[in-house]
Amino acid sequence: MTLNEVTISRAILEEQHRALIDHLEMDAAVIGGGPSGLACAALLGEKGVKCALIEKKLSIGGGMWGGGMMFPRIVVQEDARRLLDRFGIAYKAFEEGYYVAKSVEAVAKLTAAACDAGVEFFNLTTVEDVMIRGDGRIGGLVVNWTPVDMAGLHVDPLTMACTCTVDATGHDAMIARMVEKKGGALTVKGESFMWAERAESQILAHTKEVFPGLFVTGMAANAVAGECRMGPIFGGMLLSGERAAELVAERLGR
Amino acid sequence: MTLNEVTISRAILEEQHRALIDHLEMDAAVIGGGPSGLACAALLGEKGVKCALIEKKLSIGGGMWGGGMMFPRIVVQEDARRLLDRFGIAYKAFEEGYYVAKSVEAVAKLTAAACDAGVEFFNLTTVEDVMIRGDGRIGGLVVNWTPVDMAGLHVDPLTMACTCTVDATGHDAMIARMVEKKGGALTVKGESFMWAERAESQILAHTKEVFPGLFVTGMAANAVAGECRMGPIFGGMLLSGERAAELVAERLGR
Amino acid sequence: MTLNEVTISRAILEEQHRALIDHLEMDAAVIGGGPSGLACAALLGEKGVKCALIEKKLSIGGGMWGGGMMFPRIVVQEDARRLLDRFGIAYKAFEEGYYVAKSVEAVAKLTAAACDAGVEFFNLTTVEDVMIRGDGRIGGLVVNWTPVDMAGLHVDPLTMACTCTVDATGHDAMIARMVEKKGGALTVKGESFMWAERAESQILAHTKEVFPGLFVTGMAANAVAGECRMGPIFGGMLLSGERAAELVAERLGR
Amino acid sequence: MTLNEVTISRAILEEQHRALIDHLEMDAAVIGGGPSGLACAALLGEKGVKCALIEKKLSIGGGMWGGGMMFPRIVVQEDARRLLDRFGIAYKAFEEGYYVAKSVEAVAKLTAAACDAGVEFFNLTTVEDVMIRGDGRIGGLVVNWTPVDMAGLHVDPLTMACTCTVDATGHDAMIARMVEKKGGALTVKGESFMWAERAESQILAHTKEVFPGLFVTGMAANAVAGECRMGPIFGGMLLSGERAAELVAERLGR
Amino acid sequence: MTLNEVTISRAILEEQHRALIDHLEMDAAVIGGGPSGLACAALLGEKGVKCALIEKKLSIGGGMWGGGMMFPRIVVQEDARRLLDRFGIAYKAFEEGYYVAKSVEAVAKLTAAACDAGVEFFNLTTVEDVMIRGDGRIGGLVVNWTPVDMAGLHVDPLTMACTCTVDATGHDAMIARMVEKKGGALTVKGESFMWAERAESQILAHTKEVFPGLFVTGMAANAVAGECRMGPIFGGMLLSGERAAELVAERLGR
Amino acid sequence: MTLNEVTISRAILEEQHRALIDHLEMDAAVIGGGPSGLACAALLGEKGVKCALIEKKLSIGGGMWGGGMMFPRIVVQEDARRLLDRFGIAYKAFEEGYYVAKSVEAVAKLTAAACDAGVEFFNLTTVEDVMIRGDGRIGGLVVNWTPVDMAGLHVDPLTMACTCTVDATGHDAMIARMVEKKGGALTVKGESFMWAERAESQILAHTKEVFPGLFVTGMAANAVAGECRMGPIFGGMLLSGERAAELVAERLGR
Amino acid sequence: MTLNEVTISRAILEEQHRALIDHLEMDAAVIGGGPSGLACAALLGEKGVKCALIEKKLSIGGGMWGGGMMFPRIVVQEDARRLLDRFGIAYKAFEEGYYVAKSVEAVAKLTAAACDAGVEFFNLTTVEDVMIRGDGRIGGLVVNWTPVDMAGLHVDPLTMACTCTVDATGHDAMIARMVEKKGGALTVKGESFMWAERAESQILAHTKEVFPGLFVTGMAANAVAGECRMGPIFGGMLLSGERAAELVAERLGR
Amino acid sequence: MTLNEVTISRAILEEQHRALIDHLEMDAAVIGGGPSGLACAALLGEKGVKCALIEKKLSIGGGMWGGGMMFPRIVVQEDARRLLDRFGIAYKAFEEGYYVAKSVEAVAKLTAAACDAGVEFFNLTTVEDVMIRGDGRIGGLVVNWTPVDMAGLHVDPLTMACTCTVDATGHDAMIARMVEKKGGALTVKGESFMWAERAESQILAHTKEVFPGLFVTGMAANAVAGECRMGPIFGGMLLSGERAAELVAERLGR
Repeated sequence: MTLNEVTISRAILEEQHRALIDHLEMDAAVIGGGPSGLACAALLGEKGVKCALIEKKLSIGGGMWGGGMMFPRIVVQEDARRLLDRFGIAYKAFEEGYYVAKSVEAVAKLTAAACDAGVEFFNLTTVEDVMIRGDGRIGGLVVNWTPVDMAGLHVDPLTMACTCTVDATGHDAMIARMVEKKGGALTVKGESFMWAERAESQILAHTKEVFPGLFVTGMAANAVAGECRMGPIFGGMLLSGERAAELVAERLGR
Repeated sequence: MTLNEVTISRAILEEQHRALIDHLEMDAAVIGGGPSGLACAALLGEKGVKCALIEKKLSIGGGMWGGGMMFPRIVVQEDARRLLDRFGIAYKAFEEGYYVAKSVEAVAKLTAAACDAGVEFFNLTTVEDVMIRGDGRIGGLVVNWTPVDMAGLHVDPLTMACTCTVDATGHDAMIARMVEKKGGALTVKGESFMWAERAESQILAHTKEVFPGLFVTGMAANAVAGECRMGPIFGGMLLSGERAAELVAERLGR
Repeated sequence: MTLNEVTISRAILEEQHRALIDHLEMDAAVIGGGPSGLACAALLGEKGVKCALIEKKLSIGGGMWGGGMMFPRIVVQEDARRLLDRFGIAYKAFEEGYYVAKSVEAVAKLTAAACDAGVEFFNLTTVEDVMIRGDGRIGGLVVNWTPVDMAGLHVDPLTMACTCTVDATGHDAMIARMVEKKGGALTVKGESFMWAERAESQILAHTKEVFPGLFVTGMAANAVAGECRMGPIFGGMLLSGERAAELVAERLGR
Repeated sequence: MTLNEVTISRAILEEQHRALIDHLEMDAAVIGGGPSGLACAALLGEKGVKCALIEKKLSIGGGMWGGGMMFPRIVVQEDARRLLDRFGIAYKAFEEGYYVAKSVEAVAKLTAAACDAGVEFFNLTTVEDVMIRGDGRIGGLVVNWTPVDMAGLHVDPLTMACTCTVDATGHDAMIARMVEKKGGALTVKGESFMWAERAESQILAHTKEVFPGLFVTGMAANAVAGECRMGPIFGGMLLSGERAAELVAERLGR
Repeated sequence: MTLNEVTISRAILEEQHRALIDHLEMDAAVIGGGPSGLACAALLGEKGVKCALIEKKLSIGGGMWGGGMMFPRIVVQEDARRLLDRFGIAYKAFEEGYYVAKSVEAVAKLTAAACDAGVEFFNLTTVEDVMIRGDGRIGGLVVNWTPVDMAGLHVDPLTMACTCTVDATGHDAMIARMVEKKGGALTVKGESFMWAERAESQILAHTKEVFPGLFVTGMAANAVAGECRMGPIFGGMLLSGERAAELVAERLGR
Repeated sequence: MTLNEVTISRAILEEQHRALIDHLEMDAAVIGGGPSGLACAALLGEKGVKCALIEKKLSIGGGMWGGGMMFPRIVVQEDARRLLDRFGIAYKAFEEGYYVAKSVEAVAKLTAAACDAGVEFFNLTTVEDVMIRGDGRIGGLVVNWTPVDMAGLHVDPLTMACTCTVDATGHDAMIARMVEKKGGALTVKGESFMWAERAESQILAHTKEVFPGLFVTGMAANAVAGECRMGPIFGGMLLSGERAAELVAERLGR
Repeated sequence: MTLNEVTISRAILEEQHRALIDHLEMDAAVIGGGPSGLACAALLGEKGVKCALIEKKLSIGGGMWGGGMMFPRIVVQEDARRLLDRFGIAYKAFEEGYYVAKSVEAVAKLTAAACDAGVEFFNLTTVEDVMIRGDGRIGGLVVNWTPVDMAGLHVDPLTMACTCTVDATGHDAMIARMVEKKGGALTVKGESFMWAERAESQILAHTKEVFPGLFVTGMAANAVAGECRMGPIFGGMLLSGERAAELVAERLGR
Repeated sequence: MTLNEVTISRAILEEQHRALIDHLEMDAAVIGGGPSGLACAALLGEKGVKCALIEKKLSIGGGMWGGGMMFPRIVVQEDARRLLDRFGIAYKAFEEGYYVAKSVEAVAKLTAAACDAGVEFFNLTTVEDVMIRGDGRIGGLVVNWTPVDMAGLHVDPLTMACTCTVDATGHDAMIARMVEKKGGALTVKGESFMWAERAESQILAHTKEVFPGLFVTGMAANAVAGECRMGPIFGGMLLSGERAAELVAERLGR
């Protein structure tokens, strides 16, 4: 008779194996589980796009957990308030046009929304490189377990194919930089000085396809464009994630 | 005219300051944001208990994010299925009596439930010691920023008073061990070998007040009792969190 | 049309998934891929025992790669020469009764023999704990990815059931110490001073079942018994591996 | 009844919160608590300027504590003797025109003077970036807790607005380099070889506004100018701090 | 003609050499530059005792710089208010009997007072051991440069003789533990749980000579006695330093 | 009478000394013990070339041990199947033209084959530099113990002369980069994006003599040429190793 | 024609191989190259004893290089002055009976004397264990390269046989502790407090055979005996080395 | 009565203080205590030049201690044999024109010779920078304790004036690179490939004054010139040291 410990192990292995095999080919991959990536993935999922969110760390949420200077509160301005409502994140008005929410709740509700929308999460997964074949567009991701890298081990990666890739890795714009470094026609200008208002107002314009198959969102969008930084105000992040989802869906013909 | 960057900073500082001052005295403090701690806090909040969840790390969720061996799935057995339903966590039947859920979704939904129930989260916060005054019961927590410890700095802590303390720190049973180490009448026997069935069936009996003012839940309960370990099956964790919430509420007269 | 990168990924995932699921229940698990573990596993495989070798590191071979003081040669004495022949390891007579082989060749040939005998290898896999249920015998292993531990991450393990466990972890006798530390009826006396002749002559007597379901071989056998250490002479290691294989096969009724 | 531990915590939190909120907008921020920064801040405070000193480390004093090669003495020459007198730092004549003081006393007395002058100290606070809005001048600082950086955590910063910023970060001229690196019209030439006399005589000329809103003092002034280094003679440091205070006050119309 | 760089070096070397030679024999050595050590040293100096303060770190001030949880404020209660006045530390009444001061100012003013009282400071100096000769009392300190230890170097120490030694090393009670570890008749019970009121009220009783020639003050006194901890309230610290100074002066016949 | 421990030590020292002295001058040195290096060395040995394989790590096998993402399986396509057969590596057909083998077996069998062919292995040996004399070609290797480098020690290397050098160091192309960095007429373009098919098809063209005396094989060949990367498919690696062996043998007139 | 680089390598390898093989069996091994070990080895060599000095570090000299607190001077008292003369170490009288020498010169001259006396040096060599066979006495050393340990590698040691072993490893008394830890009849009491006079006067009495075949000298002798420590006075060290040499020579019948 | 521990401390402090003060102005400073630096300093001392050798590490000897690949032997060719004789270093002829010596003896004898010649050693001393005043020549060194740097502390340096500076820091040519980096008219080409014969024959030509006041010797000379590297053959090192001494003496008019 099979021991229940073995059943538990088998249940986990079978289910996750199925999910992984199923996502070796997908419509969209969002890299980075911060606010813009989560919003983008959740909205893509709602549109019926087959989508995975790939996160380097063990936990999802990126830089939002810590609020500002470890005070776990975030601020959202008027024009993005509807997204707080959409994701069910509670908030309080602080001054006219400024709303304060709990950073922990914001992460939890955005992640829950993405789960509900059918997004598959691959955490502890690092994107090492991208796949670019004869058509010159990014057609997949070269992935590995993050701890392999943390432990300094030499282990080969695997590949996941995707029609659209969304770089939601924040300030570092890691996917965009990877492409740039290996000679792709793309320049990452790097985040400029702090100027929250400007950064918030420009981010939608910078949210776009910057290389065939590669879309940027959130601070990655501003970093590629050389735009200002914004600090712990997250309205632009959410709106940029929404915009990226629209662009990707459009590209996929949804 | 005030710059909006300053308004953002002020909004965060004012709101979090209020929350912190407000929780310098509270009914219950749950230490550790894994499954049992989250379930306990969420259910305490629902009962109207003024409660904070204190988590050492930046992110909430503890050991649940990684599922089993980094395959992000968890297993729950029949008797705890109703808690998956209660918290809105989706699952699939694997074999009779075994349900598989996504570990990321489980964390997000439990955290969201605790937020909705009014639990206040203090992440990046380490409990260094407990306060025990003349009545011989734990009456508060001595807390510090986690990064102070990570950076090896010498900075004094502050104190938060609470009527009940719940140790939900997992295998380490850190609060219980702290009490034991300084001579409190409490022995932490340490987790025994793996035997999931037994561990699951005994955990409710071990979930109790082990020292005046100190309740243990989840693996901390089993560790104090010298009970077996269980691996990535989480039904007992959730049920133990529920039981701890009941015991604490009872003690507080709710 | 499926890209060949995806086919490659799928091939690896499907094959290894099958192997892992297949070994969640097995006859024997050998922990540690040094000379005694490899010899034991190879001979168990040849006897038709369903067996896996679990190795913490990325590479198989343990302490044999480096020979003595990084001079990659090992010595084997007369009574174990037949095992060098059996595994096809070339050697040269040095003085009467002492044969010198290349350490790299010894590792490669032992590993190749184990592969040919059908042994399944799980490298980068750490045994965190053992499973002991109501019958009081070790009935399985609690395993995790080694890099999870190297990276200091908190991720739950999985379980592999096995009828017999062979501790071939060398001086540390890690499985035996784990059992001892958690209160199992077993004492690890620790390796004594260097006395190669005595160590070689006593090792077969120490190769035995030291706890229900747990066999020790190689330096782990000597360490449990408090026997002397032996240095870079490997005849006793191979003979001990052979003896352990015989004992395990006998227990399994082969 | 409130416990006194809670009163203590509340006292600290309320007072520091008030100070921080109060300094989200200020006249001048001095970055770096070495001799020139302390002298500058103290003198600004005496002139009634609302000023904060922001220091990365836990302790104030910078490189002055260690004197020369850990021998805790510093040297000041004739023309700066009046500043030793002004700050109440005891000294002994060594040779004509050279006075020796204790480095520990110098730090303590300068810090005490700044406190008496109403300067607010924010220690363990790192300046990550500066705020530059449409007017092209530095209008504020992007700050974070130092231990967040030391612990390698990803947490968003907050912003403090200030009319004038004084870079007193020593050889590294960290604020100036930050501006240069992000494309501001400013070149940091870097400290040249040791030539104490020249360095001392030129430092006042280099103490100036080097970018709209940014003043440099002490070794940061010499580093921006490519001037020589000076070693453990501190007259120029103090005089430069005094000059910076005059320039900032003038700019503020005091 | 001598270069002024050489004169500067010579001035520092000559002055500090003189100070060090002069303090190879002294009345009292205070180990640890936190609040109790500083208060003790300052008051000893005022009584005309030849006294040095030896501090392991580069900066003086110990754990006081960071206030509570990095909010740089400290609290002092009514009975120690006169010491704030004595040392010129500004404060504000918070609630009846509780005064709040700036931690940075407190360090600076205490250090300045000690300097004014003629105390010699040896920072970056570690006490490795104590000298106990035939009379069985501590008659001196075995000291080394702290960086020698930080860099893991093997360098012999030197010795400084002193009639009285004051352990002001805080929670660790490092000198007392050193004596205990090498078999001296002294037990360090270790700090108990947080109970600020009790800790504050008992500290004067614990401030005493605990071994021939060794006095304890501040948290070291409470740690030796197994007394409760107190957190960021510093009245007891200052009063304990004052008491230690009285006891030492008495012993020296001043 | 000589103790057997001494005989064992002497046996190891004498045999390895002889091997090392014998290989201070050789026909070919292969740097790097991954699949292409092992195949190349084995085939060179079979052709009667006096050849050593020099490996930086303790174990031989390079990046092949871990399969793809720690799933220890590798894939080989049709055209390289004959090499699996030649080296006795078992495999299973996955889809048409794709064969899956165990990574552990592949390493063991390739290493065993190289041993059987008379290749001498120098593991834990780092190539620090190359020898280039008046003829402008690489005529030898400057080698050291790897642990000397790992421990940060300053110890001089020794030299091994060889007519042909094969860079089989993988992505890093370490020997080629060494030559490039010191001004040799050679450019390492660096590996491009993932495109397995192209990488596999082009690797033979890139396997060649890239500098007088220096041949590149495996990923080092692709890295020098700026070719695409390929992931855990190893047919091209083995074929490239075979080609390198042919080119070297030809150069040596075999 | 052989290249001269190869000749250089061969010369080094052949000579050192000969020396190592020659010392696999020897009369005496001195462990630790500080003052007592060097003096002992030099004097043993002068008596015609076949002797090696084994030093863990790259450089010989131990703790003497740094003098006292990095001031590179050492002190020797009257009764050991003749040894300074014997080894040709220059000195200056400081006060009656106290002579000061340069620490660098002391190391160099003692090492030179040992070389002249025919002592063979094995630096970067760690003693991992001792060999104790049926006669119950230490008959050899189990040695390894130090960098193997520094790099955390798992490599087997070799063995060197010796009739007498001298533990000159300083405060740690590493060989004695090794014997004690594995159950040998020997207790290491550990160094007591500083009392230079007593330590100097007692060291000769403590210099003796403390276990069959094991002699202790220098601070190791005092550490085994629980004697006081002495600091940077080296007369006793040299006299103890001389005494150890006499005792060993006597035991060997010289 | 003064304790003898105090006398010992005073003796060390007084003597070293005198030596340091005495060398704040000197004729020549040799940086780096490897073979060329030691030979240069010894020969300068013999010529009556007031000279110090400044060494970063605790021990003198540099890269010579480890011979080749940790086999502690060095090789010297015919033309430098006379220097072995001069310094009293024993050697054995290996092949015609090649002599082998023990690396430990070579270090000891060279250091002893330098001591005998009156050279003052400052070990654990790092040269951070150089002093260049109006005349454009290096006129002194900016020095600090090495452990200050190892411990990452911020402490100011002191200055030592010297007429001539000899860079004997080996491959790194640290002083030359320092001058180059700060804009001095000097290019360090960096060591080329291994070619021992050429390197040995050219080193004397490269031993020269490369910047006003700065002489290079040993591998630093070859590194500045872009010359080949040589490995563990030391004749050229010694001859270069001799040549540097001649050039410096000539410049000083000796």
